[in-house]
Amino acid sequence: MTSIAVLGYGVVGTGVAELAMRNKEKIKKSLGDDLVISKILVRDLNKHLNKGNSNLLTKNIDDIFNDNVDIVVEVMGGINPAYEYIKQALKLKKHVVTANKDLIAEHGVELLNIAKSNGVTLKFEASVGGGIPVIKPLSECLVGNDINSIKAILNGTTNFILSKMYSENLDYDTALKLAQENGFAEANPESDVCGYDAARKLAILSTIAYNKNIDWKNINTIGITDIDKIDFEYAKKIGCNIKLLGLSQQYDNEKIFASVQPVMVKDCLKLSNIENEFNSIVIDGDAVGEVIFYGKGAGMLPTASSVFGDILDIIKNKNEAPLTFNSEKADLKNSWDYKSKWFLRIDSPNRYDAISLLADKFINCYIITNNLNDSNEIFAVVTANNEKELDDNLNFILQSCNAKKYKKMMIMGNN
Amino acid sequence: MTSIAVLGYGVVGTGVAELAMRNKEKIKKSLGDDLVISKILVRDLNKHLNKGNSNLLTKNIDDIFNDNVDIVVEVMGGINPAYEYIKQALKLKKHVVTANKDLIAEHGVELLNIAKSNGVTLKFEASVGGGIPVIKPLSECLVGNDINSIKAILNGTTNFILSKMYSENLDYDTALKLAQENGFAEANPESDVCGYDAARKLAILSTIAYNKNIDWKNINTIGITDIDKIDFEYAKKIGCNIKLLGLSQQYDNEKIFASVQPVMVKDCLKLSNIENEFNSIVIDGDAVGEVIFYGKGAGMLPTASSVFGDILDIIKNKNEAPLTFNSEKADLKNSWDYKSKWFLRIDSPNRYDAISLLADKFINCYIITNNLNDSNEIFAVVTANNEKELDDNLNFILQSCNAKKYKKMMIMGNN
Repeated sequence: MTSIAVLGYGVVGTGVAELAMRNKEKIKKSLGDDLVISKILVRDLNKHLNKGNSNLLTKNIDDIFNDNVDIVVEVMGGINPAYEYIKQALKLKKHVVTANKDLIAEHGVELLNIAKSNGVTLKFEASVGGGIPVIKPLSECLVGNDINSIKAILNGTTNFILSKMYSENLDYDTALKLAQENGFAEANPESDVCGYDAARKLAILSTIAYNKNIDWKNINTIGITDIDKIDFEYAKKIGCNIKLLGLSQQYDNEKIFASVQPVMVKDCLKLSNIENEFNSIVIDGDAVGEVIFYGKGAGMLPTASSVFGDILDIIKNKNEAPLTFNSEKADLKNSWDYKSKWFLRIDSPNRYDAISLLADKFINCYIITNNLNDSNEIFAVVTANNEKELDDNLNFILQSCNAKKYKKMMIMGNN
Repeated sequence: MTSIAVLGYGVVGTGVAELAMRNKEKIKKSLGDDLVISKILVRDLNKHLNKGNSNLLTKNIDDIFNDNVDIVVEVMGGINPAYEYIKQALKLKKHVVTANKDLIAEHGVELLNIAKSNGVTLKFEASVGGGIPVIKPLSECLVGNDINSIKAILNGTTNFILSKMYSENLDYDTALKLAQENGFAEANPESDVCGYDAARKLAILSTIAYNKNIDWKNINTIGITDIDKIDFEYAKKIGCNIKLLGLSQQYDNEKIFASVQPVMVKDCLKLSNIENEFNSIVIDGDAVGEVIFYGKGAGMLPTASSVFGDILDIIKNKNEAPLTFNSEKADLKNSWDYKSKWFLRIDSPNRYDAISLLADKFINCYIITNNLNDSNEIFAVVTANNEKELDDNLNFILQSCNAKKYKKMMIMGNN
């Protein structure tokens, strides 16, 4: 018998309990072993009494540590107290499965090392991409590749909001409200809409892909709060959608570029057509070329599906050479070092000066004349050899023509 | 040190040797172990002498069996002599990695059992989807799901041909010739264009997905040799592309539908936009929903990428509970049991009778009046509750109006 303790009985915990029940017979038949949930840790017993498994509930973590539990499944989320609980579980030589991207992005190196030195496994497939198998394919199937780049939609909340802004022509606030009403955004959506959630997931994927330690807090992260209807109107004019992308790329002797930012994605690219709460991860390996993974990035049963795969992996004892994170810091770059097109909005009282400077400073400059919002804004697509050149030129232009503000967005596809 | 013997030094064998060389340092660093190719089995020594590794070549399989080889990598393809070689290797307690879908589809049950009873592993990620990780994600990450269905483009040759017919308006023969000139089709393309290759891959995936034995020879398999320019013209008229799909679905108490056939796929579906030699596999699980895998389904380094993942898995000893195929035969259905739209072409001297019978017999019937090829053919889209109803009605109509021939194609999306 394999005995599991579940920490947290919210959405994902409920899903894990449901999958454990659904798969009871199948596991018994295929492994000749029973999988049993022996304890569920909750903060408030009364809240969960009418949910089933009420006899398994406990508020006391020591009930779990004192119990003869084989696998601890942490699905409570957040850093504290999950961090201490997982650390203690690993030291007690219990395997741990977690869906907690905050924790893995923040303390992955340490926790994976503690697991290794205690001869147990810490698995976290559900921490990136929800139900989409991506950690295991990346770390096991693609291990013969040097990974060139990752381009990914990693956050369902922001993708839902941007999808609605695109397809229903909504402004940001209305789309956010719709996401909240539909359960795709939390009351406090900061972690999603500011890009922190995507940055954590990008850090986890990139740490595995490039075998260097990438601190999510050092990733240049721009959220979607500043995206408005006018951005979408111009995006459509130039055959693009706007997506919040996690981007990382390895180049020149192990430099690593990593960034989370809204990008104008040409309609012909597959990432442009990922809709609503779905996620998609494009991984480019030197041997395999581009492989793409797509599916639901969150939700009760999709996330539980990944957690369950990890649990079964541990039961099948596939843990002889566990995954660890390299603690060696990556040489992390925040500025895009390649030739690219960029969409620009410049608000200047000296429109004509600004336009002639743009045309003068950039290799290519396409001024989009149809001024949708009838203001002093200039809308342009320029080509720059790299982001530094773009920024230098822009700073010069902005000063020269007294521009009050500007906005830039990378354009991906057909560059 | 882990010692590998490679059987076959064609395209994939060359790729495996290249990846072994590229990854030498990485493996040494991460596993503290050397990975060494000790022997390469070839049919004709002279053919490979100028390729590198010429000191490792042998024509004699016993050189390999007598050697202290840990892992045998079979990339020669075909059933014989690969079948005997693999059987013998497993019995000698050597792990085996293969890219051979013919062999796994034909003898998978037996070979996996031999591996298990000898305490070694037989792995075959590259046999389906080339470089795309799909066997491992399906069998390990999605193991908590009951799989509802698989819809997949599994053959790059036919997808290349169909893509060219669609995008460049080519006829079948010209597109096939182009595929042959570009190395995407063999001189004898039968196994690809008749759908046998896709049927073998579908059988492997479905056997894992539904845990029932599915014999590829019992899968209803229709190739693309009968698809012409007119089919594509009408497909475009109704907002579709034509794709050769492997389809399988579990329903009503473990009945399994499986088929390989050209399908008209609505433009809005992701499978409609998979181009040229790429493959894509859509797996629908009861917990995870739809997950999609995409990438190169063949080629030297993509296939070697998957082979290499399997090799590393074995080195990391992830083989405690190896995958086996259930030998219990599936209750296999060849006829689509769900309501669907179908595209029909009926060649009849009595056009008006045929049209009124079509309108009479089917729930919905849309006659596409613009007769592109100016013949006696009728082009229609009808809705039927299931394929048997469709066939029964069609047989009645064909007899009633002396139709010489007809063609039917399922339409997928927006049904």
